[in-house]
This record gives sequence, C-alpha cells and structure tokens, in this order.
Amino acid sequence: MAGEKGVKLLGIWYSPFGHRARIALEEKGVDYEYIEEDLSSKSELLLKSNPIQKKVPVLLHNGKPICESLIIVQYIDEVWPGKKPILPSDPYDRAQALFWSDYVDKKIYESGMKLLRAVGEGQEEAKEFTENLKNLEAELGERKFFGGEVFGFVDIAMVPFTNWFYSCEAICGLKVDEAVPKLAAWANRCRERESVAKTLPDPKKVLESVVDFRKKMGIQ
Amino acid sequence: MAGEKGVKLLGIWYSPFGHRARIALEEKGVDYEYIEEDLSSKSELLLKSNPIQKKVPVLLHNGKPICESLIIVQYIDEVWPGKKPILPSDPYDRAQALFWSDYVDKKIYESGMKLLRAVGEGQEEAKEFTENLKNLEAELGERKFFGGEVFGFVDIAMVPFTNWFYSCEAICGLKVDEAVPKLAAWANRCRERESVAKTLPDPKKVLESVVDFRKKMGIQ
Repeated sequence: MAGEKGVKLLGIWYSPFGHRARIALEEKGVDYEYIEEDLSSKSELLLKSNPIQKKVPVLLHNGKPICESLIIVQYIDEVWPGKKPILPSDPYDRAQALFWSDYVDKKIYESGMKLLRAVGEGQEEAKEFTENLKNLEAELGERKFFGGEVFGFVDIAMVPFTNWFYSCEAICGLKVDEAVPKLAAWANRCRERESVAKTLPDPKKVLESVVDFRKKMGIQ
Repeated sequence: MAGEKGVKLLGIWYSPFGHRARIALEEKGVDYEYIEEDLSSKSELLLKSNPIQKKVPVLLHNGKPICESLIIVQYIDEVWPGKKPILPSDPYDRAQALFWSDYVDKKIYESGMKLLRAVGEGQEEAKEFTENLKNLEAELGERKFFGGEVFGFVDIAMVPFTNWFYSCEAICGLKVDEAVPKLAAWANRCRERESVAKTLPDPKKVLESVVDFRKKMGIQ
C-alpha cells in the first residue's frame, strides 16, 4: 500500500500540523510512507503537490494530494471510516469539534508561537497563551477526551501542541501543569496512546530546535 | 420555524462571512429570522452565543449556537441535505472544496482587507490581491461554478467577497474584470442566483462604508 498508488505523507519532524495527520493515520491503522521534508530545500514532490502554499503536511493518496492538516484529518476519517470515527456523526457535535480545532489553529498556535519567539521574559506572551489554554480547558471540562470517551478530532488537533509545554517552561518559566492542571492531565492521557507516543518527538529535542531558532533570529 | 426553537442568524449587513450563512440558508430554502447586530454595542444574545470570539455570524438552531461561517455552511448542508448538496459527497472533492474555501479566508480576505485599507495608491496591495484572485481563477478553469454544474461550497465561500470588487476599483483603480475576466464572469453568474441577489448589499453602499471607515482611520 505504501508505493506510488498507496499513501504518503510529507512532513517535518517538528511540525505539529504534520503530527495531526500522522496520529490520524495511526489511529486508523493505515499503512503509509512518511517522507521527511527539508524546508530549506523543498522537494519537487512538495512543490508539485502543494503549489499554492508550498507547506507541509501533504497527504498523497493514490497520487492525489490533500493539503491543510485539519482537512487531511477529515479526509482520513472519511476514506477510512473503520471502527474509530474521528469526527462525531451528529451535525452539531461535528460543528463544535470543527470550531474548537479552528480555535487551536487561530489562538493556541498563534499565541504559542508568540511565546516561543518572545523577547525578554515573555510574561505578556505567557499570559495570553495561558488564557487561551484556559478556554480550551473549560471546553474539556471533566471529560476524558474532547471527544468524550472517544479520542477524537479536537484531541488530534491539539495534542501535538502539548509538545511545546516543555519549551514554554524552559523559555519563560510557564508551568502549564499548574496553570491548566486538567488540560495537562488530558495531555498525559493522550500521550499514553500508541498513535501519539510513536508520533510526537521528544520535547527536549523540540526545545533544542526552539533554542536554535531563537539564536538564529537573535532573540534573547 | 423562526421562533425560539427555530433558526436565527446574527449578522452585520456588510459582513461577507454572514452572507455565506444567509446564501446557504436561502439555497436550502430554510425559513430563518435574521437579526442585525451592532458591533459598537454587541447584543447579549451574541455575547452569550459566541463568548469565545464575540463575532458574527452566529447561527442559532433550536437555541444552540454554531459559529464560524464555513462551519455554519457545513452544518446547514448536513442538517438540511435536501435536493441541493453544497459539499460534494466524494471525500477528495470535499477536501478540495474545503481547501479552496480556506484559501478564500487566508488569502482573498486578508489581501482584500489590506487593499481596502491601503494608504496612498495601493499598487502593491492591488498586485497581491490580483495574484490571489488569479490562483482562484485558475482553479475555476472553464467550469460554470467551482462546484462544476452545481453552485457549491467554494462558490458560497467566495461570492460575498466579489462585492468588494467595486470598492477596489474606486479606491485604487483595480479593474477586476480585466485582471481576472473568467472569475468576473463567474461572479456575474453567481449574482443571477436568487440566493445571492437577495443576500448581497448594493456594492455602492459597501463602498460608502469603506470610505467612511477610511475617513475614521485617517487613511488617505
């Protein structure tokens, strides 16, 4: 299945967006070939497959490209419905799952990036990131996963960004475990899943790449 | 149907995002109550229904709020499947429709806003907007609609923004008809549809509000 007519995923090891696609493929038990991209020298395959954005991840299924991580996860859910649905079947619940995943993109990702690139102590950035996490924690409530008993769409959308928590503490002292304990406990539950454990890189390695990036950009 | 337990839509007359929801409801023949919001004094209903973003549009269905325009259009398509599907049923075609609608949000909207707020002649902004429109025109190709013969998801996502074309010409002389003639012809085809014609405001009225906004912001 992993050949020309199978399933390929173009990603970058540290990209949370790529992790979403990988976790979804693992959850569905889809056999796929992972291809690591080099953003400083993008492959012909990437440029041909995503000529508009030239970004990872790109899923190639039978040679046809699908771009944008949340769209890829929806596609995977529709093509391999199987025993583990990722999105709920009820239209209202689906809309809520799409809303909170969009929130992760617009709020968690954006404020997290600001924090990782913060100049100085980053207290303002830490405050904004924490407030956004608190909204997400309130949405989680007392549930096991955002999908209730089921590890679902919002879980997949958010869990890759929990890999940033270690870097947040190292860079500006933000203790995510204390700020959002329920969300931190949820992150740990997610990380026990095989699909997540085998996909997410070591948070220490992520910190190294963040530190490298900050050095290159001259951020102190 | 339009009472407490029916369908209500909170919008602003000039909001392209709200227009998407209205066009989808009209296409499906759903009876709904439209409630005009005042962004300078947001209603309790809006703040209660969309506490996270506090933005329009919000669809209320049986008292339950759905937020984010593209999510609302998907919801409408799922709840009222009827004779006119908005999203294609094939997973790959759905992914493509979602991708191009996301492109409208990220590229057309963003570059269009820059152009409408441009200082001076706005030639750089006009160039960027035109390039984004050209990508969309290439995707349209020779088809009648983005959905082929069917007026679909990308058509609904994009057509409200064609109401800005008149303002673009007035503000920086961008002749959209000449820059992207096929897209301009597509816009005219869309505007002949009842759902679009009864939803979109007069482009001259839109220009007046753009000019007002520019005056208030001191943009020359």
